[in-house]
Amino acid sequence: MSSSKQDIKVCIAVAGLGRMGKRHVKTLLNRVAYAQVVAVCSADPAELEWARNEYADWGIVVYDSYETMILHPGLQAVWVSTSTDVHASQTTAAIQKGLNVLCEKPLSTDIEEAQQVVKLANAHPHLKVMAGFSRRFDASYRDAKAKIASNSIGDPFLVRSQTCDLVDDTGFFVRYAAKNGGMFVDCCIHDIDLSLYYLGDVKPKAVWAVGTISHHPELAALDDVDNGVGVVEYWGGKIAYFYCSRTQAHGHDVCTEVVGTKGKVMVNLDPRANNVTSASSSGISHEVQPEYWERFEDAFATEANEFIASIVDNTPVPLKLELGLMSLKIGWALQEALLSGERIRFDEDGNKLDNVRGRL
Amino acid sequence: MSSSKQDIKVCIAVAGLGRMGKRHVKTLLNRVAYAQVVAVCSADPAELEWARNEYADWGIVVYDSYETMILHPGLQAVWVSTSTDVHASQTTAAIQKGLNVLCEKPLSTDIEEAQQVVKLANAHPHLKVMAGFSRRFDASYRDAKAKIASNSIGDPFLVRSQTCDLVDDTGFFVRYAAKNGGMFVDCCIHDIDLSLYYLGDVKPKAVWAVGTISHHPELAALDDVDNGVGVVEYWGGKIAYFYCSRTQAHGHDVCTEVVGTKGKVMVNLDPRANNVTSASSSGISHEVQPEYWERFEDAFATEANEFIASIVDNTPVPLKLELGLMSLKIGWALQEALLSGERIRFDEDGNKLDNVRGRL
Amino acid sequence: MSSSKQDIKVCIAVAGLGRMGKRHVKTLLNRVAYAQVVAVCSADPAELEWARNEYADWGIVVYDSYETMILHPGLQAVWVSTSTDVHASQTTAAIQKGLNVLCEKPLSTDIEEAQQVVKLANAHPHLKVMAGFSRRFDASYRDAKAKIASNSIGDPFLVRSQTCDLVDDTGFFVRYAAKNGGMFVDCCIHDIDLSLYYLGDVKPKAVWAVGTISHHPELAALDDVDNGVGVVEYWGGKIAYFYCSRTQAHGHDVCTEVVGTKGKVMVNLDPRANNVTSASSSGISHEVQPEYWERFEDAFATEANEFIASIVDNTPVPLKLELGLMSLKIGWALQEALLSGERIRFDEDGNKLDNVRGRL
Amino acid sequence: MSSSKQDIKVCIAVAGLGRMGKRHVKTLLNRVAYAQVVAVCSADPAELEWARNEYADWGIVVYDSYETMILHPGLQAVWVSTSTDVHASQTTAAIQKGLNVLCEKPLSTDIEEAQQVVKLANAHPHLKVMAGFSRRFDASYRDAKAKIASNSIGDPFLVRSQTCDLVDDTGFFVRYAAKNGGMFVDCCIHDIDLSLYYLGDVKPKAVWAVGTISHHPELAALDDVDNGVGVVEYWGGKIAYFYCSRTQAHGHDVCTEVVGTKGKVMVNLDPRANNVTSASSSGISHEVQPEYWERFEDAFATEANEFIASIVDNTPVPLKLELGLMSLKIGWALQEALLSGERIRFDEDGNKLDNVRGRL
Repeated sequence: MSSSKQDIKVCIAVAGLGRMGKRHVKTLLNRVAYAQVVAVCSADPAELEWARNEYADWGIVVYDSYETMILHPGLQAVWVSTSTDVHASQTTAAIQKGLNVLCEKPLSTDIEEAQQVVKLANAHPHLKVMAGFSRRFDASYRDAKAKIASNSIGDPFLVRSQTCDLVDDTGFFVRYAAKNGGMFVDCCIHDIDLSLYYLGDVKPKAVWAVGTISHHPELAALDDVDNGVGVVEYWGGKIAYFYCSRTQAHGHDVCTEVVGTKGKVMVNLDPRANNVTSASSSGISHEVQPEYWERFEDAFATEANEFIASIVDNTPVPLKLELGLMSLKIGWALQEALLSGERIRFDEDGNKLDNVRGRL
Repeated sequence: MSSSKQDIKVCIAVAGLGRMGKRHVKTLLNRVAYAQVVAVCSADPAELEWARNEYADWGIVVYDSYETMILHPGLQAVWVSTSTDVHASQTTAAIQKGLNVLCEKPLSTDIEEAQQVVKLANAHPHLKVMAGFSRRFDASYRDAKAKIASNSIGDPFLVRSQTCDLVDDTGFFVRYAAKNGGMFVDCCIHDIDLSLYYLGDVKPKAVWAVGTISHHPELAALDDVDNGVGVVEYWGGKIAYFYCSRTQAHGHDVCTEVVGTKGKVMVNLDPRANNVTSASSSGISHEVQPEYWERFEDAFATEANEFIASIVDNTPVPLKLELGLMSLKIGWALQEALLSGERIRFDEDGNKLDNVRGRL
Repeated sequence: MSSSKQDIKVCIAVAGLGRMGKRHVKTLLNRVAYAQVVAVCSADPAELEWARNEYADWGIVVYDSYETMILHPGLQAVWVSTSTDVHASQTTAAIQKGLNVLCEKPLSTDIEEAQQVVKLANAHPHLKVMAGFSRRFDASYRDAKAKIASNSIGDPFLVRSQTCDLVDDTGFFVRYAAKNGGMFVDCCIHDIDLSLYYLGDVKPKAVWAVGTISHHPELAALDDVDNGVGVVEYWGGKIAYFYCSRTQAHGHDVCTEVVGTKGKVMVNLDPRANNVTSASSSGISHEVQPEYWERFEDAFATEANEFIASIVDNTPVPLKLELGLMSLKIGWALQEALLSGERIRFDEDGNKLDNVRGRL
Repeated sequence: MSSSKQDIKVCIAVAGLGRMGKRHVKTLLNRVAYAQVVAVCSADPAELEWARNEYADWGIVVYDSYETMILHPGLQAVWVSTSTDVHASQTTAAIQKGLNVLCEKPLSTDIEEAQQVVKLANAHPHLKVMAGFSRRFDASYRDAKAKIASNSIGDPFLVRSQTCDLVDDTGFFVRYAAKNGGMFVDCCIHDIDLSLYYLGDVKPKAVWAVGTISHHPELAALDDVDNGVGVVEYWGGKIAYFYCSRTQAHGHDVCTEVVGTKGKVMVNLDPRANNVTSASSSGISHEVQPEYWERFEDAFATEANEFIASIVDNTPVPLKLELGLMSLKIGWALQEALLSGERIRFDEDGNKLDNVRGRL
C-alpha cells in the first residue's frame, strides 16, 4: 500500500501561532489530505506552552525559533502566518533553504521589499511560492468571476467592495494595527485585489481616501483610522470604491458588487452566520459571522489544498506571487491620500506621480 | 353640510405636464382629499393636446402659459414640475402673485438664484413655499430617521447612499441631462440630502468625485457622466459616499446605509417591485421597480398631503425651503471635483476654498 | 364646474365602528376620490361617543341604529363592517332599500343564509353587491395571478397558504372568536379563497384538519383552536394546505406559494414592515407588520375604489358575490374535520358526502 | 512519530458505488483525517470498472461482492450506501463480522426488519452502529436545536418541513423509487425525523396524507406520487406538516420551521447555491443548490467525522440507532393514509390503531 495516494504527505510547518496560525494547523490536520504537519514555531512563550500541550500527541515539533524550525529534517513547505513585518524575511529564508512557501498576504507592507521577494522566488522556479489572498479561493467570489467571464453582466466597469470587521474591545486590533501598514494596506488590500480580479488588467489613474476614528482613539498616534472610504479611478473609465471598518456592531460584513454594462453581480450583500432565521417579538432576524474565519474557513481549506496540490503535482501555484504588488501600491497611495487629504495620481503605466505626506 | 371638512378644497395648479407633472395631477385627484386641481400648463403642444382630451371632464383648465395660469381665479397653490432651469423663476412669479408653492427639487441649479428665492419666500411668511425632496416623505427613510433618533445605532458617522436608475435607451435622459446641472447636482442631490438628514448639522470639509461614461457617449459634450462615485468628508469625523448611475440593467436601485457607533440602519438594500418571488429553472428571483415613481409613489402622495395640510391648517411646511441649499453646494463641489480631478476643500463654516475648473 | 369628475360623489355609509369600520371611514375620506361619507352607525355607546366627536367636523351623521341609517337621505351605498353574525341581515336590508353594498367577508358563517343573500342580490342586478375578499385586491397577489396566467409556472397544482396573526393578549380576539365560525371559517377562508383563485375551477374531494390551543384556553369552550393545519385535496390531482395561527410572536405573517409544473410563485415569504433593515450586536433584523391592516391597507383602498367605480361607471363589481360560497363550504368541512378527527369527503360536484360531528 | 494522532487511521470500506457511495469515498479521503479507505464494493459492472480505474492509485481494493469485502484484512468499519432493500441485511452481516457500521437511512423500509437490526446492534454494544440521518449533522439544524434548547421560541408545538427535489428527467428517480418504500418513507422521513428532533419525545395520534403525480406517470404503478402533503397530529397538542416533491423546477428546496409559544425558528427558507446574487434586466436572482449533496455536503463530512471519532475514542455514536424507528412508523402510516384516503390513528403509546389499505 506504500504507493497509495492515501499515503502521500507533504511535510509542512506553520510559522506563527496566533489566532490564524492555530487555525491553519487545524485546517492542515483535518481538511488537507496530502499534508502532514511536522513543526510549528512561535516567539511567544504563552503560545509555545499552549502548543507543547496541544500538539503533544500529534507528532508536531514545537520550535521557539523560525530559523531553527526551517531546518527540521524532511521539511518541504512552510506556511508563514506571523505578523506582517517578518513575512518577507521569513519567506526569503525559506526560499533560500529550498522550501515551498505559502505566505499570508501581504508579502510585505514595503513595496520594495515585496518586489525583492518576488524576484527571489522567480529565481527559484522549482519552488512553489504563493501569497495568500484568501478571497480568491472563496466559492462565491469564484462563481462571480465565472459569471463575469461568461459575459453575464456585459463589460464590468465598477466595483464596490467593503471589509468591515466586528468591533474589537480586547485591544487586540490596536496592537495588531501598529505593524500592519494602516487601514488601506492591511484591510482594504483584499478589496483592491478583488477590484483587479474583476476589472481585469487595469492601472490606477488617481485615488482619494478619507477616514475617521469612531472607536479606537489610540489609532491617531499610529497615523491610522478605524473607518475609511477610498476611491480608485482606473485608466480606461473604470472605478472602484471601498469601505473598510474595524468597528461594526453586527459582525464580519464583507461584500462586493461588480457593475457591468448589462448587469450586476453581488457577493454576500446579506451576511449570514448560517441558514437559520428567527422570528420573535422584535421582528425577523439572523446572525452574522463574527469574524473572517467563519466567512472564509472553506476558502482557507481550498487555498491550502491547492497550494499543497501544486507541490504534489508540480504545477504552478494557483495565484502568482506578483499578484499582490499592484494592490499594495494602490493601498499605499490610498493611505497617503488619507493622511494628506490630497488625491494621488498615477501615469498610464501605473507609476505614482504625486508624492505628498502630512495632512494639510 | 357646507362646513364639512369633506368639502374643504385647496385650489391648485400643476405647472409642467411631463412624466412627473401628469403623475402629480393623478396624485392630487386620487390621494389628496383637500386638493382640487383647477389648472395645468405646459409649453409643449403635444402635452397640451393630450391634456385637453384627458382633463376635459375633470374641470381642469389647460393653459399654454405659466404666467397666464397663475392668474387663474381662485388659485391658491402651484406645484412647479417643469424643467429645473425655470423652477426659480416660476416659483418667484408664484410668490409674487401670493400663491403657495410646492417646487420640485432643486429650486435652481444656480446657488445664487436659489438663495434669492429663499430670501423672497422668507419675506412672504404667510405663504407656504416648499422644495420637494421626496425621499424625506418616504415611510422607510422616516422610520430609519426615527430609529436613529431613538439612539438605536449610537452616534451616526457614516452614510452610504446610491441613486441608480434603469438604463434609458429612448434618448429621454440625455435630453433631460442638458438642463439638469450634471450627475451630482441632479441625481446625487437626494443622497447628499439624506446624508445631511441622517448625520445632522454637518459642514463639508472636502469632496472628491470620479465618473465614467458607460452608455451615453453624448454626455461627454455636456460635461457629464452616466456613472459617478463621490465622497464627502464632513467636519467632525463624518463621511458620506455616493454612487449614482443612469445605466442599471435591473431597475431603480436606490439604497442608503447609515453606520453608527452601535449599529447600522439600511433602507432598501434589496429593491423589490412587490412581495412576489419566483422560482424557476434559472433560480429564485424577484422583479425591481423600474423607476423612482414606483419606489416613491406613496412618498409623493404624503408630500402632497402634507403640503396641502400646511395650507389648510396654516402650519409650517414640513420641509424648510433652505434645506436644499447646502445639498446644492455640495453637489456642485462634487461636480467640480469630477470635472477637474481635484479634491475640493471647504472651511469649517462650509465655505468652498478651492476653485478649480477644467479637468487636469 | 358642476359637470367635473372632481365633483362626482357616491354617498356612502359605514356600518360598524370597530377597528375596521374606523379604518374604512379613513380610507373613504382620504383615498377614494368619488366617495362622500355621509353616515356611520354603531350599537356600541363608546363607539358612538367617539364618532360624534371625531366626525363632528366632517359632515358625517352618526346613527345608533343600522335600520335608521340606511334611510339616510341620498344614501347610495353601505359598507357593512359589523360582526359576521349580522352581515347577511344587514346586506339583505340594504338591498331591499335599493342600496349598493360592500360587505366584509364572509357574507355569513351559515352557507344557507349566504346563498339566500346571493339569490336576493342576483334578483337586483342593477345594484352593486360585493363581498370583500381583500387579498384579491392586493397588488402582489394580482401579480402572482398574472404570472400564472402568463404560464410562468406551467400548470399550477399545489397551493400552500398561511394566515398567521400576532398574538393578542387584550382579550379582543377571544371575544371576537365567539361569533366568527371558528379558525377555518373565519381566518383560513382567505387562504381557501386564494387556492381557488390560483388553482382555477376546482372542486374539493377530501379535507382534513388538526389544531391545537397554545395560548387561549378559553377557545376550548368555543370549539375552536388558536393554531390549525388543514389540507384540501381537490379533484383532478390538485392540493392545497393551510396553516392558520392567532399566536405569532413576530407579527402578521401571511404568505402563499403556488407550485406549478414549471416553477413556483411565492407571495410575501419574508414579511416586512417596510424597507428598513437594522444591524446590531444581535445580528441583522427587520420588523414585521403587526396586523393585516398594515399589510393590506393598499388593498382595502383598491377594493373601495373599485367598488365605488363600479357604481359610478355602472360596471360589474370586481368580485362576484357568489365567490365566497365554495370557500365557506370548504372552511366548514375543515372545521368539521378539526372537531371530529375524521377526513371529510366530497363528490365530484363538490357536494359533501361525510357528515360527522363531535371529536372522537 | 508512530504514536502521533496524525497516524491514526480507521480502516473503512464503502458498500455501494452509486452517486452517494462515490461521494462518501471522496469525503473519507479528503475530509476525515482519521479514516483510511481500504475497500469498496458494488454489484454493478459499470461501477466496478469505473472504480478500478479511479481508485487504482489510492490503495483501495475494489470488490464485486459485499460478503467478500467485509472479510478484507484489518477492516474496522463499513459505510453502507447501497439501495435501501439491502441496508438491513448488510448491516446485520457487518455486525456479525464484528465491524462498526454507518448505514444510510433508513435501516430498512420494513419496521420489523429494522427492529431486528436494532436488537442485534444492542447485543453488540462494543460496536458503533449508526443510521445516517444527515440533517442532524447540519450546522443550521443544530443551531436551530440549540436556540430552541435555550428557550428562544418558548415551547415548540408545530413543525413545518419540506423536502423538495429538483425534477429528474433522466429516469434515475423512477428506477430508484421502485425500492425506496414511497414518498413518505423515503423522502419525508427526514422531515418526520426533524419534527421529532424539535418537538421532543412525542407520539403520533393521527396522520393524513394526500398526493398527486405531476410529472412521473410511471409512479402510479408503484403506488407512489411525486408530490405529497402529510400532516401528523402528535399527542399533547403538537402538530407537524410536510410537503415532499420530486418535481421542483428550481433546485433542492429543503426548509423547516419550528413554531413555539414565544417565537419561530426557520432553517433555509431561501435556498441559495452560494453567496452570489445577480441583477439583470429580468430582476434580481440567485441560484439554488441542485441537489441535497450541495446542501448537505458539510453535514455528511461532519457525520463521517463523528462516526469515525466514536470508534477512535470509543464513545457512543452521535445518533442512536433506534432513532429512525418512530420516523419509519409514521412514514408508513402517512403512506397508508395516502393510498387509502383514510386518516390513521394511534394510541397514546404510538401504536397504530387503524389498518386500512387500498384507496377508496
